[in-house]
Amino acid sequence: MADGTTAHRVVIIGGGFGGLLTAQSLHKTPTHVTMIDRRNFHLFQPLLYQVATGALSPANIAAPLRSILKKQKNTHVMMGDVTGFDMAAKEVLLRDGTRVPFDSLVVATGATHHYFGHDEWADRAPGLKTVEDATEIRRRVLLAFERAERETDPKIKDRLLTFVVVGGGPTGVEMAGAISELARHTMRADFRTFNPATARVILVEGQTRVLAAFHEKLSAKAKTALEDMGVEIRLDCHVTAIEADHVLVKPDGGKAEPERISTETVVWAAGVKASPLGKILADAVGVQVGRGGHVPVNPDLTVGTRADVFVIGDMASCPDAAGKPLPGLAPVAMQQGQYVAAAIVRRIKGETPKGPFRYLDKGNMATIGRAKAVGESFGIRFSGHLAWFAWLFIHILYVARFENRVLVLFQWFWNYLTRNRTARLITHERPRDAK
Amino acid sequence: MADGTTAHRVVIIGGGFGGLLTAQSLHKTPTHVTMIDRRNFHLFQPLLYQVATGALSPANIAAPLRSILKKQKNTHVMMGDVTGFDMAAKEVLLRDGTRVPFDSLVVATGATHHYFGHDEWADRAPGLKTVEDATEIRRRVLLAFERAERETDPKIKDRLLTFVVVGGGPTGVEMAGAISELARHTMRADFRTFNPATARVILVEGQTRVLAAFHEKLSAKAKTALEDMGVEIRLDCHVTAIEADHVLVKPDGGKAEPERISTETVVWAAGVKASPLGKILADAVGVQVGRGGHVPVNPDLTVGTRADVFVIGDMASCPDAAGKPLPGLAPVAMQQGQYVAAAIVRRIKGETPKGPFRYLDKGNMATIGRAKAVGESFGIRFSGHLAWFAWLFIHILYVARFENRVLVLFQWFWNYLTRNRTARLITHERPRDAK
Repeated sequence: MADGTTAHRVVIIGGGFGGLLTAQSLHKTPTHVTMIDRRNFHLFQPLLYQVATGALSPANIAAPLRSILKKQKNTHVMMGDVTGFDMAAKEVLLRDGTRVPFDSLVVATGATHHYFGHDEWADRAPGLKTVEDATEIRRRVLLAFERAERETDPKIKDRLLTFVVVGGGPTGVEMAGAISELARHTMRADFRTFNPATARVILVEGQTRVLAAFHEKLSAKAKTALEDMGVEIRLDCHVTAIEADHVLVKPDGGKAEPERISTETVVWAAGVKASPLGKILADAVGVQVGRGGHVPVNPDLTVGTRADVFVIGDMASCPDAAGKPLPGLAPVAMQQGQYVAAAIVRRIKGETPKGPFRYLDKGNMATIGRAKAVGESFGIRFSGHLAWFAWLFIHILYVARFENRVLVLFQWFWNYLTRNRTARLITHERPRDAK
Repeated sequence: MADGTTAHRVVIIGGGFGGLLTAQSLHKTPTHVTMIDRRNFHLFQPLLYQVATGALSPANIAAPLRSILKKQKNTHVMMGDVTGFDMAAKEVLLRDGTRVPFDSLVVATGATHHYFGHDEWADRAPGLKTVEDATEIRRRVLLAFERAERETDPKIKDRLLTFVVVGGGPTGVEMAGAISELARHTMRADFRTFNPATARVILVEGQTRVLAAFHEKLSAKAKTALEDMGVEIRLDCHVTAIEADHVLVKPDGGKAEPERISTETVVWAAGVKASPLGKILADAVGVQVGRGGHVPVNPDLTVGTRADVFVIGDMASCPDAAGKPLPGLAPVAMQQGQYVAAAIVRRIKGETPKGPFRYLDKGNMATIGRAKAVGESFGIRFSGHLAWFAWLFIHILYVARFENRVLVLFQWFWNYLTRNRTARLITHERPRDAK
């Protein structure tokens, strides 16, 4: 049964948290698994901000999918670009014309940045979803300091030393905190014509508090911690323009004039939408995507009337028991992957799923800076050093599932001791653009 | 005297081995040093092949110049692109119009690939000088394996699994050995449609032996070690064509037909020429560049009639005591940097240089693979494990001068234990190009 020609063929698209957990949960089951991804590696996205601020290298938070799955003899990793589906023939279509047949299909290609109708902002305010996003943000942040060192006009110098992060969720909070640490600690002695501690980091959030998904008390703690680190916070404000040399930030509600912030470096952490493959899949199956392009799923994570097609992770719009959509978090995707793998195995055996997917919320965490974090788990809230160590522990537990666990642990520990960010390389752009 | 406005102004162009050692040797001297580089980091080029084959990340072998020099208060790091010189006004010209005045000038921008009149080969056979070169070669090598996994035509599959390295010097030998290890060990269990150990690695060298700068016995040892690792060696052969799907390799001398090797992945390690700034400088000073664009220097490393202009490192053509040009090696550049710094300090004091520059050859080493190397020092030749540990020790001694020493040491040790190459990421190209 487990041989490639006769076993139940499971095709998984996307090697993120959801897809990878599906594949791993199908180890030693009577299935033949094909994992298709455009990239050759699994990426630990929650730590991308550490790459964007020079603390870790891309390879510290990524592992080749082949490496992770090499001992799973029923699993075949395929690097390829899915462009469509032939649902009648039960085949996935790749850009080069290859057709990959499936008995069960799991689509988990995640989410991308959402500029809410302002796609022209994408170039000026990159988001943080890929390795290239992270090295590009790193390049921009470091280049702004380099240019400031050479700038003689004080107005332009101030503009170069102002960084705006749009969005006060975990990614935005982490980015703002990390840029502030980079300037105030790591690069403290690096410049001769200005004091890096004078750099401004401004965090803009549309809601009335940062980390709105957390308890109010944790939002307040995070705000205080950020402000202690020198981050300026604009709550209840929306960005209305992002230009080459400034952004406009408008307070909500009132008739106040928008604030004009001179800056050349903007990071987007405000919104995500489902990857475009979601719409292609929805059309093929005959369902409508929701706001943000998310694919609505049935309680068992199947789509429309297809018992053999599953959507999981950030791409899915999946209600919780109360009918509220589940958040786009790694643990949701991972639990969905495990659920789907079990459902497929039950189906092979002729059994029905055990019941609807239920997300077990083990808690939620966000780091703010060195040894500072907030978290909540089963009604218990924690912050400060304790929360940071918990965050570290949980992340190491996850990364420990891959081969470079010792290295990452060691690098973190080293960075923590030394406040170091040795991966401060400006790469992959014509160097002559430096000023 | 040591204050920036009245101190003797030394401008160093290039933060490689030569430039960096010049700057560091001017620490606590009555000089004001400006280090100009197009990049924001010093790169340990001898280990680039480890990045190109996924063993190390770029940040493991690079350190921000600002970091390295931050405690040197007389030193100012400037990221910028030098386009010319005004020798009458004693100024360096940057692309953006900035003019940087100097009392002493040190030019050390190194070398780039030399395709001997075949510049059209540059795209098809990238060399290994920059971080981007290394990640591009890594991308090509890994992508060839990815495409082979999906290829059904056995001829194309074989072509994808054939790698040609042009040039049998240390870089070529290291690359050939590392690609072979990647295929035979690291990725041994990664693929389902072929055995990676069947991949061919072919090393083409124009001379009659590899590592021609070493003693014949070491060349023979290196050749045997490479062949044991499965590398095919073509000696006394020149590449006469590099096309998208093959290279032609012609044996020298005889009338033999060129061998046609089907391959899509070629690495160039055959020749270097001085960076283009050498010619610009030579023209400004009124000397002629030599073959390969190298700038001829006086015995005290000055250029032409200028007592205030020095050229060092791979850019210089500097004869040894016997009149033979010194090789383009890091130790040569480093000793030249120390010599020039001392000469500048003597000149400030009104003293003349101590005598001509003399290179103290402490030895030469090349690695072939895991725990395999050859070396010679003061007439003693060594190979095998001992040589490899010596190589490791010397490299760690050097890297230990930067802040990330512990990390690199740890990563090397880890890679050695596990034969691991965790930095196997295909990045910075549109992923849809994957086949």
